[in-house]
Amino acid sequence: MNGLVSLVGAGPGDPDLLTVAAVRRLADADVVFHDALVAPEVLTLAPHALRVSVGKRAGRPSARQESIDRLLIRAARRGRRVVRLKGGDPFVFGRGGEEALALAAAGVPFEVIPGISSAVAAPALAGIPVTHRGLSSAFTVVSGHAEHAYGPILSALPPNQLTLVVLMGLASRAALAALLLSRGWAASTPAAISFAASTPDASSWVGRLDELGDVPLDADAPGTIVIGAVVSLARRLDTRRPQVTTEPEVEKRHASR
Amino acid sequence: MNGLVSLVGAGPGDPDLLTVAAVRRLADADVVFHDALVAPEVLTLAPHALRVSVGKRAGRPSARQESIDRLLIRAARRGRRVVRLKGGDPFVFGRGGEEALALAAAGVPFEVIPGISSAVAAPALAGIPVTHRGLSSAFTVVSGHAEHAYGPILSALPPNQLTLVVLMGLASRAALAALLLSRGWAASTPAAISFAASTPDASSWVGRLDELGDVPLDADAPGTIVIGAVVSLARRLDTRRPQVTTEPEVEKRHASR
Repeated sequence: MNGLVSLVGAGPGDPDLLTVAAVRRLADADVVFHDALVAPEVLTLAPHALRVSVGKRAGRPSARQESIDRLLIRAARRGRRVVRLKGGDPFVFGRGGEEALALAAAGVPFEVIPGISSAVAAPALAGIPVTHRGLSSAFTVVSGHAEHAYGPILSALPPNQLTLVVLMGLASRAALAALLLSRGWAASTPAAISFAASTPDASSWVGRLDELGDVPLDADAPGTIVIGAVVSLARRLDTRRPQVTTEPEVEKRHASR
Repeated sequence: MNGLVSLVGAGPGDPDLLTVAAVRRLADADVVFHDALVAPEVLTLAPHALRVSVGKRAGRPSARQESIDRLLIRAARRGRRVVRLKGGDPFVFGRGGEEALALAAAGVPFEVIPGISSAVAAPALAGIPVTHRGLSSAFTVVSGHAEHAYGPILSALPPNQLTLVVLMGLASRAALAALLLSRGWAASTPAAISFAASTPDASSWVGRLDELGDVPLDADAPGTIVIGAVVSLARRLDTRRPQVTTEPEVEKRHASR
């Protein structure tokens, strides 16, 4: 009697940004296989479950994908209620599709429970709507993890026409900015990084594309890069600080923590 | 003493896909201003609130944006706990940015609570990951509501390189497909429509880009269009039907309801 594997999105970090369905699956879970970036407070929502970290953190060792697939299948075949908990959404650069294919091939029942992706929420929580009438009517999301993946896409995207969101791109921010500038994106294009969005450590930097490569980083904070005219709204819409209406057009801030 | 306005994403339809934060705000709300598409089951989560529909449904009359802004500001100035409830995410084609700007200009405290956007969830619930290693490492989201907005973007996007998600594009599906084909997208590009995702009426169509214009519609069902190689995974990953591993490469289905 096979158990069910739920591929669950944990959202950007704040446990209150989990969905009701995700909370329910965690409460009922026998075992939770989670990414390293999933917050401890989220894991406490699965009090009865065996919790197994299966890695996936940039630059750190992590379980190989085939090992994760095997763990999921084996637990399900033992009849366990299995949650595979991934930061953000399982199908946005989460390799959820690969795990789902492995489960389907093994005949293991599974379901997908979407989560709040940082691609939209991290900008939003820094006061940046990814679309806005008159500023942007489209957005593109890419991973900045591997140049061979983002290079061809960023080279081919039409410059200065849409909002660009880069996940896992902090380490390559200088290369990303240089590539876009070489492809005709304006040096003055507003750019931002939303760090650790939705967590108590949240902060952001707002500036220009030609400054993106020099933004100092806190080594441990994850961050989402946003590039495009919509970033110009951040100074008015970031509700985490007093709202001031007269400010310089371009402003930098990167809260010390 | 101003109340707080919460711009809240209601997700794709299923009340279980609301976030914990959204459920909490609804439970505490004095007044809820909601889009027409928000499901009645979601509104029952705000039992103590005055509930006001402010429209926004394609082809139907709806309150003008400035009227909505005024309603939000007036309710907040009366000290009310106000929820502005929008389908999906408030900052993905939701005009949430415009409302937030109006609130900021009026000095009314507000917050943004992200929701599950159909841009990712509707494909996911039809078995389509918007990214997948080896198939797509980027996705672009556009609105199909107005040709003057999507035309320039779709004309400029690099063909056959990324996943394209079109929200509010059912009525313009033939024009969208024709435009993409004229810009070099392959006629055989896998394409899908995820109808009424996450609701009991959910169904989907899976086929090719050159067939998209002829897909029959149920006039009332909302739908999300997905175009790109990742759609080829749908026949293996759509968990709403028996999983069969030997099927024709291209398959159409549009459940009768």
